[in-house]
Amino acid sequence: MTKTNVFDCNCPMARVTEVIGEPWTLMVLREAFLGTRHFNEFERELGIARNSLSVRLRKLVEAGVLERLQSETDRRSFEYRLTDSGRGLMPALVALAQWAGDCLCDGSTATRFVERRTGREIPAVAVRSANGRVLDADEIAMVPGPDADEALRARYQRVPAEARAR
Amino acid sequence: MTKTNVFDCNCPMARVTEVIGEPWTLMVLREAFLGTRHFNEFERELGIARNSLSVRLRKLVEAGVLERLQSETDRRSFEYRLTDSGRGLMPALVALAQWAGDCLCDGSTATRFVERRTGREIPAVAVRSANGRVLDADEIAMVPGPDADEALRARYQRVPAEARAR
Repeated sequence: MTKTNVFDCNCPMARVTEVIGEPWTLMVLREAFLGTRHFNEFERELGIARNSLSVRLRKLVEAGVLERLQSETDRRSFEYRLTDSGRGLMPALVALAQWAGDCLCDGSTATRFVERRTGREIPAVAVRSANGRVLDADEIAMVPGPDADEALRARYQRVPAEARAR
Repeated sequence: MTKTNVFDCNCPMARVTEVIGEPWTLMVLREAFLGTRHFNEFERELGIARNSLSVRLRKLVEAGVLERLQSETDRRSFEYRLTDSGRGLMPALVALAQWAGDCLCDGSTATRFVERRTGREIPAVAVRSANGRVLDADEIAMVPGPDADEALRARYQRVPAEARAR
């Protein structure tokens, strides 16, 4: 089995790895959520090399997370804006940042997520059951969906029984 | 501003980037959630080079996501198990995988997340307000917390007014 194989299966985690599994991308997304739109602003805020930034932005455009539009104020320049799909990453980003605050930053609070309108703190993002109950990690199972390819289906069949039942 | 600078600030997104912003790590976490515990099993399931796997596992242990324990069945071998902190990544991982299914895989369903006990589909992970209302990305603001360092606090001060109000 080569590296290509496991990323070639249609596991959504393998797909998302291609988008965010790269040191700069989460920071580019942070900037996009903070309203950064121009190439030069991303460059300045992140201190990222222009060629790396170019590649990151192009990949995010290709993945449908950002769109590249002619600037409304200067028709010679372009803006990068979050698409609906990009905005759909918000739950994942908030969950990641909350987790990092709790688990990687000794519980210190460097960034808070608040509801814009009220300024009220946003509680920890949780996985909930169909009837709204907050689920622990152990209560959640990953199973193949109808479109799982052969490699992914085979992977799930190798899940040990105790991991299934836990 | 150099690359070091933006990652040196205490932004939780910068911290989490150090843990998951790497092509293999999400796949290693997928495996850990599926019950994979031994070095050789990770290697076999992922088709990852042993030296890369070693580095990934060590970093995840250092970050407190996995712990390395003597195997219960063979005292000469070691197991990697998710810590409570690692299990706390579940909301982020489910949100990422659900997003990938919706946005990167043309809506095809390769992996489903279900409640173990009932087998019922788990709805999309959402960001909710303090009173439980599902929030859109535009309703969420990132603001500096009490422990934000100078660099991060300065960054938030540069957020354009329209991004704040949107």
